[in-house]
Amino acid sequence: MERVDGRQADQLRPVQIQRQYLIHPEGSVLITVGNTKVICTATVEEKVPPFQKGSGKGWVTAEYGMLPRATGTRTQREVTRGKATGRTMEIQRLIGRALRSVVDLQRLGERTIWIDCDVIQADGGTRTASITGAFVALKDACRRLLKNKQIQKDPIIEALAAVSVGKVAGELLLDLAYEEDAKAEVDMNVVMTAGGRFVELQGTAEGTPFGRDELDAMLRLAEKGICELIEAQNQALAESAQA
Amino acid sequence: MERVDGRQADQLRPVQIQRQYLIHPEGSVLITVGNTKVICTATVEEKVPPFQKGSGKGWVTAEYGMLPRATGTRTQREVTRGKATGRTMEIQRLIGRALRSVVDLQRLGERTIWIDCDVIQADGGTRTASITGAFVALKDACRRLLKNKQIQKDPIIEALAAVSVGKVAGELLLDLAYEEDAKAEVDMNVVMTAGGRFVELQGTAEGTPFGRDELDAMLRLAEKGICELIEAQNQALAESAQA
Amino acid sequence: MERVDGRQADQLRPVQIQRQYLIHPEGSVLITVGNTKVICTATVEEKVPPFQKGSGKGWVTAEYGMLPRATGTRTQREVTRGKATGRTMEIQRLIGRALRSVVDLQRLGERTIWIDCDVIQADGGTRTASITGAFVALKDACRRLLKNKQIQKDPIIEALAAVSVGKVAGELLLDLAYEEDAKAEVDMNVVMTAGGRFVELQGTAEGTPFGRDELDAMLRLAEKGICELIEAQNQALAESAQA
Amino acid sequence: MERVDGRQADQLRPVQIQRQYLIHPEGSVLITVGNTKVICTATVEEKVPPFQKGSGKGWVTAEYGMLPRATGTRTQREVTRGKATGRTMEIQRLIGRALRSVVDLQRLGERTIWIDCDVIQADGGTRTASITGAFVALKDACRRLLKNKQIQKDPIIEALAAVSVGKVAGELLLDLAYEEDAKAEVDMNVVMTAGGRFVELQGTAEGTPFGRDELDAMLRLAEKGICELIEAQNQALAESAQA
Amino acid sequence: MERVDGRQADQLRPVQIQRQYLIHPEGSVLITVGNTKVICTATVEEKVPPFQKGSGKGWVTAEYGMLPRATGTRTQREVTRGKATGRTMEIQRLIGRALRSVVDLQRLGERTIWIDCDVIQADGGTRTASITGAFVALKDACRRLLKNKQIQKDPIIEALAAVSVGKVAGELLLDLAYEEDAKAEVDMNVVMTAGGRFVELQGTAEGTPFGRDELDAMLRLAEKGICELIEAQNQALAESAQA
Amino acid sequence: MERVDGRQADQLRPVQIQRQYLIHPEGSVLITVGNTKVICTATVEEKVPPFQKGSGKGWVTAEYGMLPRATGTRTQREVTRGKATGRTMEIQRLIGRALRSVVDLQRLGERTIWIDCDVIQADGGTRTASITGAFVALKDACRRLLKNKQIQKDPIIEALAAVSVGKVAGELLLDLAYEEDAKAEVDMNVVMTAGGRFVELQGTAEGTPFGRDELDAMLRLAEKGICELIEAQNQALAESAQA
Repeated sequence: MERVDGRQADQLRPVQIQRQYLIHPEGSVLITVGNTKVICTATVEEKVPPFQKGSGKGWVTAEYGMLPRATGTRTQREVTRGKATGRTMEIQRLIGRALRSVVDLQRLGERTIWIDCDVIQADGGTRTASITGAFVALKDACRRLLKNKQIQKDPIIEALAAVSVGKVAGELLLDLAYEEDAKAEVDMNVVMTAGGRFVELQGTAEGTPFGRDELDAMLRLAEKGICELIEAQNQALAESAQA
Repeated sequence: MERVDGRQADQLRPVQIQRQYLIHPEGSVLITVGNTKVICTATVEEKVPPFQKGSGKGWVTAEYGMLPRATGTRTQREVTRGKATGRTMEIQRLIGRALRSVVDLQRLGERTIWIDCDVIQADGGTRTASITGAFVALKDACRRLLKNKQIQKDPIIEALAAVSVGKVAGELLLDLAYEEDAKAEVDMNVVMTAGGRFVELQGTAEGTPFGRDELDAMLRLAEKGICELIEAQNQALAESAQA
Repeated sequence: MERVDGRQADQLRPVQIQRQYLIHPEGSVLITVGNTKVICTATVEEKVPPFQKGSGKGWVTAEYGMLPRATGTRTQREVTRGKATGRTMEIQRLIGRALRSVVDLQRLGERTIWIDCDVIQADGGTRTASITGAFVALKDACRRLLKNKQIQKDPIIEALAAVSVGKVAGELLLDLAYEEDAKAEVDMNVVMTAGGRFVELQGTAEGTPFGRDELDAMLRLAEKGICELIEAQNQALAESAQA
Repeated sequence: MERVDGRQADQLRPVQIQRQYLIHPEGSVLITVGNTKVICTATVEEKVPPFQKGSGKGWVTAEYGMLPRATGTRTQREVTRGKATGRTMEIQRLIGRALRSVVDLQRLGERTIWIDCDVIQADGGTRTASITGAFVALKDACRRLLKNKQIQKDPIIEALAAVSVGKVAGELLLDLAYEEDAKAEVDMNVVMTAGGRFVELQGTAEGTPFGRDELDAMLRLAEKGICELIEAQNQALAESAQA
Repeated sequence: MERVDGRQADQLRPVQIQRQYLIHPEGSVLITVGNTKVICTATVEEKVPPFQKGSGKGWVTAEYGMLPRATGTRTQREVTRGKATGRTMEIQRLIGRALRSVVDLQRLGERTIWIDCDVIQADGGTRTASITGAFVALKDACRRLLKNKQIQKDPIIEALAAVSVGKVAGELLLDLAYEEDAKAEVDMNVVMTAGGRFVELQGTAEGTPFGRDELDAMLRLAEKGICELIEAQNQALAESAQA
Repeated sequence: MERVDGRQADQLRPVQIQRQYLIHPEGSVLITVGNTKVICTATVEEKVPPFQKGSGKGWVTAEYGMLPRATGTRTQREVTRGKATGRTMEIQRLIGRALRSVVDLQRLGERTIWIDCDVIQADGGTRTASITGAFVALKDACRRLLKNKQIQKDPIIEALAAVSVGKVAGELLLDLAYEEDAKAEVDMNVVMTAGGRFVELQGTAEGTPFGRDELDAMLRLAEKGICELIEAQNQALAESAQA
């Protein structure tokens, strides 16, 4: 079976990570994965939510949005609906949880880093691209805190990236584009550290349940993709070192 | 390490499934797992959401709620907040998706089964207890449709149950109670069919990422738990056969 | 005219009051009146609303809800509508007002007791069952405050219960079931103390206005019902004395 | 005890009912009761709510509002809060129910009459003034339907008015002004027909419960007030006969 | 072309400004411009919004509403919609901005004046009538502050009024009534001081864009109208001097 | 006085208009005006709002949004607030009205063009940049309708652009950057056609009212800016002719 864009089953789409994309935020990235484009920003706020007050620890939280015409047909704005959809809630909770798992909140001190991921163009994998891009924005925000001597040690413990894998027409594929995702029998999102350990694993059988062997094969695909994404992050972070 | 209630690491809490708990719904169950108690109902509605109209296929959807004092301290009603929390959204989407994966929507015909899971008392594992209990309520609603000759064949393809597993103080445990869940390093919810295949797999590292070996061990624990839960469902469904 | 369940015109439905129904709340009751079942809980919170701050007085407030399939056809969740219905508002204001009328807020001190009444199964008279059950939950919460020496004197001045009366097909009836209520010409809810004095009186002519003589006869019926309900409360409170 | 404005215990405040107060509505009244002023309008809409469709019957419904500075201190607009208060809900349900009880919905035909009561200035008794004034606006709207031959017979069966009574500092009073209402021990609203029968009776013990004898005495006061209010309605309706 | 009410192209509708219309507010006006009637109130609150705290300066803010039957067909209440319409938002922001431009916030001190403009009857020009009437209510509130020695100097720097001009069927007209406004090709609202300077200028081409010469002619019409409105304000303020 | 970025008083910031910025929409533009960046898209929908149904005419409507970190400090998402701010409402109404004024809705036929303007980076003038960019996206959407023969004649009658002018520290300036806008005494937005006629004129005195001579001078500045913006639009539209 040929993939919609001619890729191999275990091949990522082309990835670009453009740092310092915006002038205002403490960290800002435009991540492009195939046709999926997400603006990820990191904002430092010098206070924490009530449950962290007085703990000496900071917080990392995320919000996710999508422009109305990021999609093939126009999506109604959430503000017009009056509330976020369940999908948005699920995604932003995932992004926040994933990033917190590689941050030492003690080292961050009593401040919050807000991550905003806004999808400019969607073609599948927006939540995984958001996590991968947001990590770089978060890193830049931490570098600035270090440079300004607001913190002593980098609170980021380890790099992290995310990718989707799935089963489409009986075949296991890495990094599903929208067209593949829409007909996938199994859809799995994996968030993994540079050290190859799991941060988040969310697998869903859309139609037929999947067996243990398929799970194993999908996790191998995901691991390969994550390695390449972390490589792309490292290159971006190295380049902008002089910026 | 002794567990909070003296259980073995691989032991479920006591499970009871009481069918026909309420007089009005087409299917209704009170499921008790340790101190967690959930009322699960199934309601048949003779119409489908817009996206299924004219398809000849039905739909299964779920809503989840919690009484204010299901919890140790009072939780504000969601209607007072004006909208469901992200947690509620996430859980009800999970319940609906899981149940749909074992239903043949064609056999169901153009009707919707609404699943309502309302937590009366919470002590960890409310989402997995909801799925396990809701399956039985759904089964009863389908039996009634069959008995009334509204449908010809049972739309339920296979039984399904759900359980949590996790890593607490370095140890892998089956079926976490609230106190364990609150300090878990890894928390994983597994939805599995009677045939041992995955319907949903959601693993989250709360603090430190987890390795492949830990994943494998947790999946073995989950499989054991699911077998016992499906056994409990079968007994309940057999008992009420004469009711 | 025979009543739907064979009762006499002046006969209550069977009443059960199960105390300590849940493990978490300071007071919790499952009250059953015929097929109507309501979980009533009392929660003690160590603060008061802004208008009571610094007054040395406490507050009692109530919220009311209904599970979607408490009713014959499924009722949409209020959180999905985005706000409570007028009916819910009216009922919860009534419950709070009624209970406050028998509480000495000075003795309670600057704390709030939250009453939550959640209807598990509805067959008419849910607001009156809520008040009757909530009184017992409130009593248990006060007993606990006394036992813990958080207060010196029981803030509850007098017992209180509630019942509906009405005129159906020209006949005056005590304690209307749903089927009776739906076709009632007059519907009246009475909240009365153990001493036979009125706390709340709400009579509504659904179709034709009612005369003074009918009012008098309905009040006599209500008084009889209230006496029996207060007797049931006393028995429940005596039983659990040793619990 | 002297009343705040020097009235006798059984004396109404001065009442004025100005018809055709606005140019657009089918019926419109400015009712003044002491310092309380309410604009009541009746709007005819040629459709009915879903539950009346095809029944051949009409509907009467009411909404109630208050200008922010109708009150001594500014009240926040309900649209700013995002939803109506429980008080508003309760009042508008009462107004609609009361008016429907004297309307033959069959004669009205499949159309809705919307009653809007907007309080311009509040000094106690706004809900009872609203009902008394709205009756006149409703009457005018029905007269217009008759005049235009949209209906054959007047759907209004009988006149109706409303008044408050209460117990203040141990004394029973008719038609409480705000200052009296604020310290009332018992507060009762009575809606009664010209024929002296009850449409609605809502009595609340704010502090201490009230006995049967007090109820009887308050009902006598209310009856006297209602008679005088119906007399005022009749005069207003007679005057404008030539308008 | 004859105007709908026989006026000249450059003629205002009859204007009345009734002060002290309500008993509670610090300033209250009923302004009538033809058939348009607006109640304008000014409320003094002894605090400022967060952004003014500690600045020594006050604030002036406005809210705008419309009774459901102010209009020819009934308009749904905004609270029922759940939020203010864009039109309401636009108008109330305009009123607040306009009034602030003639107030010395330093002289006002750290207090807020709330302006409420509620349209009782609408026939075009409700926003300009609101501004013209609100100025008088604001003036009265300031006079009271001066009289009570809460402030030392009148914070109002200069008088201000507002009027609409437009192009209807090719002709330029002053003070459009609703029927004219509905078919206007250009609609312009002008807020101007007694000294003939602009505070706000909002011109909109509904169909065809307008040229510079038309703009000039409309501004001349507006200036004439504003002069007459300020004259009416002055008369009202003089009359009530003795009140 | 030197401007913040060294510009002349009558000089625009550098303008870039990048067409076909996104793959999904029928028209999409990234417009850059100095540091202000807005994504403008045009979406064709084959239906019209209720008030246009059966008229044979189409509709053009606009929505406006801003990413949270488009601004110097993070702005809360409107969906989190639960509703759009008054500012957003005002701006999107302005954009829609302005574009409709140059569209022949009859030629468009019964379809809606949705304009979405999302600010990626804000530095003053976001509403005028939105209009200028949206015109180009709208033009592209119309070209596509023409190319697909869905319409016969271009519904766009004339080009249109928008710019701000203002008075800062006593000097009249063209195209205010954020820093200038924040301290402007007068702020005016002008929407004008290629033919030099006004579509919309909104001038606001932030502090002190402005005179007729200042108005005239500001309008001359605006006219100069609009000419240059329309030139930029024409170049962009010519370039992409071959795309």
